[in-house]
Amino acid sequence: MTSGHESDRTTEKIMEATYQALCEHGYPATSISKIADEFEKSKSLLYYHYEDKEELLTDFLRYLLDQLEAELAPAEGKNPTERLVAILDRLCPREVNDEGMHFRRALLEIRTQAPYREAYQEQFERSDDLILGEITDAIEDGIDGGVFRAVDAQQTAEFIYSTVHGTIELGVTLEDTTIFDRNRAMIDEYIDSHLRSSS
Amino acid sequence: MTSGHESDRTTEKIMEATYQALCEHGYPATSISKIADEFEKSKSLLYYHYEDKEELLTDFLRYLLDQLEAELAPAEGKNPTERLVAILDRLCPREVNDEGMHFRRALLEIRTQAPYREAYQEQFERSDDLILGEITDAIEDGIDGGVFRAVDAQQTAEFIYSTVHGTIELGVTLEDTTIFDRNRAMIDEYIDSHLRSSS
Repeated sequence: MTSGHESDRTTEKIMEATYQALCEHGYPATSISKIADEFEKSKSLLYYHYEDKEELLTDFLRYLLDQLEAELAPAEGKNPTERLVAILDRLCPREVNDEGMHFRRALLEIRTQAPYREAYQEQFERSDDLILGEITDAIEDGIDGGVFRAVDAQQTAEFIYSTVHGTIELGVTLEDTTIFDRNRAMIDEYIDSHLRSSS
Repeated sequence: MTSGHESDRTTEKIMEATYQALCEHGYPATSISKIADEFEKSKSLLYYHYEDKEELLTDFLRYLLDQLEAELAPAEGKNPTERLVAILDRLCPREVNDEGMHFRRALLEIRTQAPYREAYQEQFERSDDLILGEITDAIEDGIDGGVFRAVDAQQTAEFIYSTVHGTIELGVTLEDTTIFDRNRAMIDEYIDSHLRSSS
């Protein structure tokens, strides 16, 4: 109704088109023109908004991060284990379909380019800080509440986050989605045996 | 002396030049011409041997894999824990310098391209099979010898291998080598608490 709403709606459509293009073509082959092909509005609008692919993709990463932030926020009312499970379910679900696999592969491709592109790097650092912070908070919460052992929360969070990345990396690059289910069982077991207080 | 030796020597020089180019430019920017710049012999020799970048890189992956195979072989005489440590030290050492980081980043970049290029995919599948096989063997060896608990060797191997991949991915994409040392401590602790038999 207002131009602000209209502009939000346009942004959303651009982000959806970017998502589709990434799933379909992967990062290296995704161009503004390929994204425009997925965009139902005028292509000139897209070119008007963004100078190059990097600018658009940076906005896309920012958009994803805002979504993740909004999704993780309600977890703060949950108990520590539920919080950990919520993050793991979001990042590394037991079942991943083809679209989910292609999208995660594209994200990994963008991540490998981050060291060459400061704008990407900034977004990945923000998202890693957000996720590591959330895992660390959940663990500290559990330690404070006596449900988790007094482990090094930050180091344990980093380790769990690494297992998530490794699982996704092996799954999407070898195109084997069955690893998600197997490794989630191992991560859950790790949380149970390494974190859960025996008292 | 023989033409066979001469040809081996040339192959080695080409592989060294490829390694240097990858460390310096990363995978996307590495071209046959950039590799030729690192090659002391005639450039035409390189173009004579390889039709395109993909062909050369496939040979490079094969060369790395042969080296890895030769390096892991002597581990078969060691005890199960030493075998695991040897693999971890090789893939995910506690300290990684800039060159090691740049090279691992280039390898990750090539890995993300594997789903689009069958020749790469084949090499990564072979190398994952080799490494997972070695970790699984070491764990089974430990179970048979009573030093490890009767865990699911294959699933545990896959989990450990995933933590290695996740560690390298986070380290090289965020350009933070300190994670190698921290995560290795966590992996070692995991092996100790999850695998080591308490009897």
